[in-house]
Amino acid sequence: MNYPSQLIEDAVNELSKFPGVGKKSAMRMVLFLLKQKEQDATRLGEAIIKLRSQIQYCKRCGNVSDSEQCNICSNPKRNQQLICVVEDLRDVIAIENTQQFNGTYHVLNGLISPMNGVGPDTLNIESLLQRVQAEQTQEVILALSATMEGDTTGFYLSKKLAPTGVKVSTISRGIAIGGELEYADEITLGRSIALRTVYSV
Amino acid sequence: MNYPSQLIEDAVNELSKFPGVGKKSAMRMVLFLLKQKEQDATRLGEAIIKLRSQIQYCKRCGNVSDSEQCNICSNPKRNQQLICVVEDLRDVIAIENTQQFNGTYHVLNGLISPMNGVGPDTLNIESLLQRVQAEQTQEVILALSATMEGDTTGFYLSKKLAPTGVKVSTISRGIAIGGELEYADEITLGRSIALRTVYSV
Repeated sequence: MNYPSQLIEDAVNELSKFPGVGKKSAMRMVLFLLKQKEQDATRLGEAIIKLRSQIQYCKRCGNVSDSEQCNICSNPKRNQQLICVVEDLRDVIAIENTQQFNGTYHVLNGLISPMNGVGPDTLNIESLLQRVQAEQTQEVILALSATMEGDTTGFYLSKKLAPTGVKVSTISRGIAIGGELEYADEITLGRSIALRTVYSV
Repeated sequence: MNYPSQLIEDAVNELSKFPGVGKKSAMRMVLFLLKQKEQDATRLGEAIIKLRSQIQYCKRCGNVSDSEQCNICSNPKRNQQLICVVEDLRDVIAIENTQQFNGTYHVLNGLISPMNGVGPDTLNIESLLQRVQAEQTQEVILALSATMEGDTTGFYLSKKLAPTGVKVSTISRGIAIGGELEYADEITLGRSIALRTVYSV
């Protein structure tokens, strides 16, 4: 494509690096930006630059943070003996939004995936093992995706955590709330019968 | 939503202002940015800031430009007596990509749309009329979207241009009714310029 301005070409090229954004979507974004006030466009640009340059990772749980320790780890009202292990930041936000969990997190920053060359050493696993031993954690909840990578990572973690004696649990697998039984896949449905829970009113 | 970091919240809020980008897409972008090198994220942010602060508009045709006169208006190889009137920058890029047009452009920066409160006065129409008279333009091609707003604008322009005696044509309607110019394929769009018909009221 020929662009009438180097500034536009640069912006389109940079914006189209975002996942799921092609050249045409990037061009729409550029036109949107051109219609904004200069201070609004500057605020957006600065938010992006600051995000990457000023972000910190909590030294304890690996979650993103504005300081050395994240809000959750430094909150005395949360159960610091309970660790929920998640893949990344999005899962922290998703679980926080349920308002059902009062413990802390440990962010692996990925899942074991030999196909993509991601081994245990590249993830925040060693820090989890050290943390469980040092803090005498009561329970580790594995909240990982129900995919091959998630199951592999969960299996690896349960093996590694066994010697520490900590209780290891995993989030329940089954039919989603509001889900139609007939549309559930066979593995999920089969497992939801095997893992049935006692009906209590 | 609760975000674990003010930096992330700011970036999500800013990115979700883009058209078609919601909070979840913005969160995906943020995660992508966090995985980038700091210099890459900075380059993106700076491209956005520079785009809005340094962009100029060609004094002759209204197209975006890196200088006072755009590349097309200052190119002696292009037919300066032929003006193609378009809605915005995207249409200039789309027509340039057909490599079928050797004239110049006039960018209206919108279409007449009473529903959205856009009247002729807010568009670059007056400058077009002055330009046609001053430059003794031979022909004005109306390359506007085949929508109600495009047709309205074309009709208004043809009325306004009639007293100048300039030949007014419109791109042929090989483009489907209701279709947006920027999404037309290059062959159709190129042919619609080659097969333009005389605009008769």
